[in-house]
Amino acid sequence: MYKERPDFKGMGRVVEKEILAIRRHLHQCPELSGEEWETSAFIEKKLQEYGIPYTKGYAGTGILGVIDGGRSGATVALRADIDALPIEEKVESAYQSKYKGKMHACGHDAHTAMLLGAGKLLMERKGQIAGRVLLVFQPSEEDSPIGGAQPVMDDGIFDQYRPDVIFGQHVWPDLPSGTVGVRDGVMMGASDRFRVTFYGMGGHASMPHQTTDAVTIAMTVINQLQTIVSRNVDPLSAAVLTVGKIEGGYRYNVIADQVTVEGTVRTLDEENRNLMKERFHQIVRDGTHAMGGKAKIDYIQGYPPTVNHTRWAQRVRKTARAMFGDASVPQVNPSLGGEDFSRYLKQYPGAFFWLGVRPKGGLPKPLHDPHFDLDEDALAPGAELMAQVAVDTLAEWEE
Amino acid sequence: MYKERPDFKGMGRVVEKEILAIRRHLHQCPELSGEEWETSAFIEKKLQEYGIPYTKGYAGTGILGVIDGGRSGATVALRADIDALPIEEKVESAYQSKYKGKMHACGHDAHTAMLLGAGKLLMERKGQIAGRVLLVFQPSEEDSPIGGAQPVMDDGIFDQYRPDVIFGQHVWPDLPSGTVGVRDGVMMGASDRFRVTFYGMGGHASMPHQTTDAVTIAMTVINQLQTIVSRNVDPLSAAVLTVGKIEGGYRYNVIADQVTVEGTVRTLDEENRNLMKERFHQIVRDGTHAMGGKAKIDYIQGYPPTVNHTRWAQRVRKTARAMFGDASVPQVNPSLGGEDFSRYLKQYPGAFFWLGVRPKGGLPKPLHDPHFDLDEDALAPGAELMAQVAVDTLAEWEE
Amino acid sequence: MYKERPDFKGMGRVVEKEILAIRRHLHQCPELSGEEWETSAFIEKKLQEYGIPYTKGYAGTGILGVIDGGRSGATVALRADIDALPIEEKVESAYQSKYKGKMHACGHDAHTAMLLGAGKLLMERKGQIAGRVLLVFQPSEEDSPIGGAQPVMDDGIFDQYRPDVIFGQHVWPDLPSGTVGVRDGVMMGASDRFRVTFYGMGGHASMPHQTTDAVTIAMTVINQLQTIVSRNVDPLSAAVLTVGKIEGGYRYNVIADQVTVEGTVRTLDEENRNLMKERFHQIVRDGTHAMGGKAKIDYIQGYPPTVNHTRWAQRVRKTARAMFGDASVPQVNPSLGGEDFSRYLKQYPGAFFWLGVRPKGGLPKPLHDPHFDLDEDALAPGAELMAQVAVDTLAEWEE
Amino acid sequence: MYKERPDFKGMGRVVEKEILAIRRHLHQCPELSGEEWETSAFIEKKLQEYGIPYTKGYAGTGILGVIDGGRSGATVALRADIDALPIEEKVESAYQSKYKGKMHACGHDAHTAMLLGAGKLLMERKGQIAGRVLLVFQPSEEDSPIGGAQPVMDDGIFDQYRPDVIFGQHVWPDLPSGTVGVRDGVMMGASDRFRVTFYGMGGHASMPHQTTDAVTIAMTVINQLQTIVSRNVDPLSAAVLTVGKIEGGYRYNVIADQVTVEGTVRTLDEENRNLMKERFHQIVRDGTHAMGGKAKIDYIQGYPPTVNHTRWAQRVRKTARAMFGDASVPQVNPSLGGEDFSRYLKQYPGAFFWLGVRPKGGLPKPLHDPHFDLDEDALAPGAELMAQVAVDTLAEWEE
Repeated sequence: MYKERPDFKGMGRVVEKEILAIRRHLHQCPELSGEEWETSAFIEKKLQEYGIPYTKGYAGTGILGVIDGGRSGATVALRADIDALPIEEKVESAYQSKYKGKMHACGHDAHTAMLLGAGKLLMERKGQIAGRVLLVFQPSEEDSPIGGAQPVMDDGIFDQYRPDVIFGQHVWPDLPSGTVGVRDGVMMGASDRFRVTFYGMGGHASMPHQTTDAVTIAMTVINQLQTIVSRNVDPLSAAVLTVGKIEGGYRYNVIADQVTVEGTVRTLDEENRNLMKERFHQIVRDGTHAMGGKAKIDYIQGYPPTVNHTRWAQRVRKTARAMFGDASVPQVNPSLGGEDFSRYLKQYPGAFFWLGVRPKGGLPKPLHDPHFDLDEDALAPGAELMAQVAVDTLAEWEE
Repeated sequence: MYKERPDFKGMGRVVEKEILAIRRHLHQCPELSGEEWETSAFIEKKLQEYGIPYTKGYAGTGILGVIDGGRSGATVALRADIDALPIEEKVESAYQSKYKGKMHACGHDAHTAMLLGAGKLLMERKGQIAGRVLLVFQPSEEDSPIGGAQPVMDDGIFDQYRPDVIFGQHVWPDLPSGTVGVRDGVMMGASDRFRVTFYGMGGHASMPHQTTDAVTIAMTVINQLQTIVSRNVDPLSAAVLTVGKIEGGYRYNVIADQVTVEGTVRTLDEENRNLMKERFHQIVRDGTHAMGGKAKIDYIQGYPPTVNHTRWAQRVRKTARAMFGDASVPQVNPSLGGEDFSRYLKQYPGAFFWLGVRPKGGLPKPLHDPHFDLDEDALAPGAELMAQVAVDTLAEWEE
Repeated sequence: MYKERPDFKGMGRVVEKEILAIRRHLHQCPELSGEEWETSAFIEKKLQEYGIPYTKGYAGTGILGVIDGGRSGATVALRADIDALPIEEKVESAYQSKYKGKMHACGHDAHTAMLLGAGKLLMERKGQIAGRVLLVFQPSEEDSPIGGAQPVMDDGIFDQYRPDVIFGQHVWPDLPSGTVGVRDGVMMGASDRFRVTFYGMGGHASMPHQTTDAVTIAMTVINQLQTIVSRNVDPLSAAVLTVGKIEGGYRYNVIADQVTVEGTVRTLDEENRNLMKERFHQIVRDGTHAMGGKAKIDYIQGYPPTVNHTRWAQRVRKTARAMFGDASVPQVNPSLGGEDFSRYLKQYPGAFFWLGVRPKGGLPKPLHDPHFDLDEDALAPGAELMAQVAVDTLAEWEE
Repeated sequence: MYKERPDFKGMGRVVEKEILAIRRHLHQCPELSGEEWETSAFIEKKLQEYGIPYTKGYAGTGILGVIDGGRSGATVALRADIDALPIEEKVESAYQSKYKGKMHACGHDAHTAMLLGAGKLLMERKGQIAGRVLLVFQPSEEDSPIGGAQPVMDDGIFDQYRPDVIFGQHVWPDLPSGTVGVRDGVMMGASDRFRVTFYGMGGHASMPHQTTDAVTIAMTVINQLQTIVSRNVDPLSAAVLTVGKIEGGYRYNVIADQVTVEGTVRTLDEENRNLMKERFHQIVRDGTHAMGGKAKIDYIQGYPPTVNHTRWAQRVRKTARAMFGDASVPQVNPSLGGEDFSRYLKQYPGAFFWLGVRPKGGLPKPLHDPHFDLDEDALAPGAELMAQVAVDTLAEWEE
């Protein structure tokens, strides 16, 4: 029996003006993780405006729109993160951040705008939908290692609404506008972080034998750390260990009693993540001891790898190809960046995908850069895609 | 024929009160290198008071007392340096530095007081002296690499007065009060200084391949630098290469585009000094290039090694033994610190020696330490010693 | 119009006895690269026995069987390498190598046997084949960097027979029997090789300053080499730099004047291959120079990466699934080993694939290991697969 | 009251022919440590010939001549070592070693000849001698760490004859003929020795993650070892750590499961000796553990430093100056070589000194070199010196 289903292809245009207005408004008023009260209130107002029922009060500033279709069916969740970053915006525009030192440098303004746009589209065709769509507006994605996804789940809202599948979309400046990046399996990595202080004993530069030189401790240990990536990790997997910052000592003629280094470890799977953590501790601990010093290690594990479920990654690919053409879904490598959508995917089936937002001919500025900008033309199609992925997913249950 | 000569043994007591008053006054009013105007004026007033002829106006704040003995003979120069350091004194006393951020932390206040005391003693017995004694009050000893000794000579004052021998005395907290340290040959080392900035290219911590990581450049180069001392220098000579300070990078998740290190190179002879300079440049330059980076090297050569003339070192030893007993002249190792008296010894015969100022039972605080202090009981004997060394030296000519 | 085409599913059984006999015979009589005269004569005898026309005299011991189908069409080449390794076999069996120090430790005996088996099957159904099948028996695959593939092409045999597509199959002990591994794109890597001698100047162990210590040169340079993989290569690509052997010096109390290291560089694409080669040379050259020594570098580039054409990799997958079931084609990572089939794929479309030969429950011994062994049960299906891939490929042209 | 005492100045000429004959005979018949039976028998024959009483049978091949003077007095011991080295001589001469692979490359042949010559001289003037002279012919000096000095003392021969002072003389190719080198305090160093095997786990060069690479373990640990000399040892003292030999791995494409290094540690005092031993173990043990490997350490302590007693070093200087002139006793640095005479100096007062044997205009070949040779003209004066040092020493007691 034929089931009527919405086809949102090209429908983005209908909500484009609205999406851009929302995005620019949010861009101008960025709020940091855990402080998204204005943002949340704005979303609430929009949901009310679109007639979408919602619930709030979870995970602090979180708010959940709930669209019930005309037919019963499964439940699909669409997630947008809503927080901004402590970065001073350097892009000049009419809607430049008006909050000093805060910026939507990771595109969460666009995510929120697109999810509201998708919600509006879905709400208008709710009669044709077989099941329920959840619009998950999530705070604190940038607040690693706690994040916002875990609090959303911890606050029981998903226990109540029980999503069968969950999708998340992220604007992606490395991909051109009009394309979508999605992978079976690992999509984004684990981003862990460390801070080590090497302690020696200081003294006069001409009397090293009366000291334990923290600079040579740090130097030999950082040397040994290189071998984790060069020798301990499977070359067919991906891993990075970066010491980004180093600082120690006082003057040219005083031997340093301490040196502090800060850095990050990136991996794409838990096995390598654990391997690197273990080797890191062993090298820092024993390597420092070999040099007669002591080390204080702070090692903070951030979000786990974001691993897509093949079935739902394929769903995104199929829907995207149908809407934007075969060429719109290029093969992509995973990213070594972290993302707290990973936490949902440990509990629920689903997929995380990237929306190309690099303007034609433009050179992309990376996410988190004070010059980050995106091609707004990509956003209406992004909203369409979210909406269509939701209904196509629900359709799979109905078939 | 018998020649009457002064014997200052025990005479220090006569001028002790005066010496301590001078030292405390100067201690309270420390002036930095090149700015010793009050100090110089104070010395001038004292020379006038003692009736010692003087000349001034050389090397900026320099002032030269000239004592002509009753008999003609050779000329011996005694030198005291008069400048203080940019250090905030942490020793509490009635005569604590009253100039914020300035301190006589290298004992030049004591040097000046002792030389004035010696001048007073010599002036009172001038009739018995066979020749001339120069009291050289020298500015800017702490101002490496220019210093004050070279300007003294460059201003022609020694061309006029032509010293046959020159002596310098330094208070020495590692030696107990009542002892004198002096060596044939090298007494103090060369202290050179470097600052290197390693330049790479920064970028995101997860994309090292798009960068040139300045931290790994610095680390591998510092590692290679260790081999200069461990492998290139004759193990029977002394050499130190210390990287005292290291600083680079911005955040844990950003690859550093530059790292700056500062340090010092210490040697006891010109051969090793040149060897280390050459190896340092080769390693930094080629080692950095190996890593795909660039290095900017500032390498500042400080004072040359201070090398005593054996004859005059023996003179000091004999005089000191005669005055203070055989046990007063222990064997000492050279110091790897620098001293601009070295410049005189490249032009004139002479010797530099150390006066023990460590109080019995006390733990010494090193020179240049904000807690540096000395045993004032050692100063009157120090003045005696200077005076006696001068007359014993002149006596050698007369014999 | 219906075209009759052969279906070899299950037909391997017909030739299994023959295949095993051939494989065991060849296993017993291994010949090194360029010396495969007996092997070649044996193949010739078999081709005669099967009635397959052939040509020989190219690439030394090469021999080419030519099967012309009943209908005209395209030309597909199937390749087997025929040479053995200079390894002393440690597997005991009735057909253990009888040539001391030589062994078919890379399974080329099986490759040859399977290709003869496939040829026999194809010849028997030649009437149903639309086009021509070339059986390429290639010498010297193990003789990197020259190999046998390039001589085959250089001798003009392919200019004459013009294959439209070429396939190669390799037994693979990491995969279980009954499976086939094949990838779109890169299948096997580039395996380059280096030998570096670091020259210093020797001398007595207690007088390092009179020497240039080759051990410390080698040590600091190997240390810097680690950073190529840890910092210069894209972490999302694969690269290995191994120093496998190190040797230098004479006695505990003599400083070494030279140290020699040997190793290998593995990559999956030409970009990283070139990057690593360039960085290797820069680090060895400049890093050695930093230490005051000299380095002699031999850097031999082996075979290029083996990169499958997606269309023909898919062909293999489809054929294998049809014959052995969907589960028979697991996802596989590329291998960092080298293979001279790569040379064909630079000139002709095609694919290289792996045939699982690990016995159920057995632990695989790697290729080139003196204990290497394979599951002979896998060989008859391997022959079937080769034959079927050939006819399915030709069928694609006819459609 | 005047005491008649022998004056051997110039008397060497009387025994020169005899000394050279002995030296050349011994040079031709070198015997290794512990095997000096012919040598010992030859010495015995000479002692008999000179009429010198002796005792033998201690320390294996040791033999002791005893000369009692005409007056009673103290006892002075003169020591010569008598063993040769396992080196193939490359110096051609009429008296080249006739025992293949054995050579008097350390001059013990000359030591023995000079001591016999000195004995002959002393015996002829025994009436004028006030006390007793012991001629100690000692085996096994080259057999570190056991040596021959300890067995001599352990066998009780010195308990019986109770030397008050002991002297040893060594030919020294770095000093010109006609000179004598002797220092107050440390004369020769401690020479310790190590052998470390680093154990990892081997595997295929392209799969480092399945292995623990022993080459990178060795590399990082040797790197850390450099910091012992560069940072842990007082720069004003002397220390060397040399890794002379390194060997590990099998082939370019196999990851090494073990690497062995051999080397030596040289110091001039027990404090640094212990420091280096301790730091060595800490770095090897913990540095290896940091890398996930294991290390087996053999660390053999050789002879302790040879430390002269100032009084007897001065005795040698005075006697040498009196015999050969003031210029004959240049200032010398200590040597970092080891010498088992050190063991005597831990029990008895005395001094060890060097006899210059470098021919005028010649370039010296170092001791233990297959090309080592000496200026025979230096030997007769060397015998004179030994004899005179003995009688001058005894005279000190009589005064």
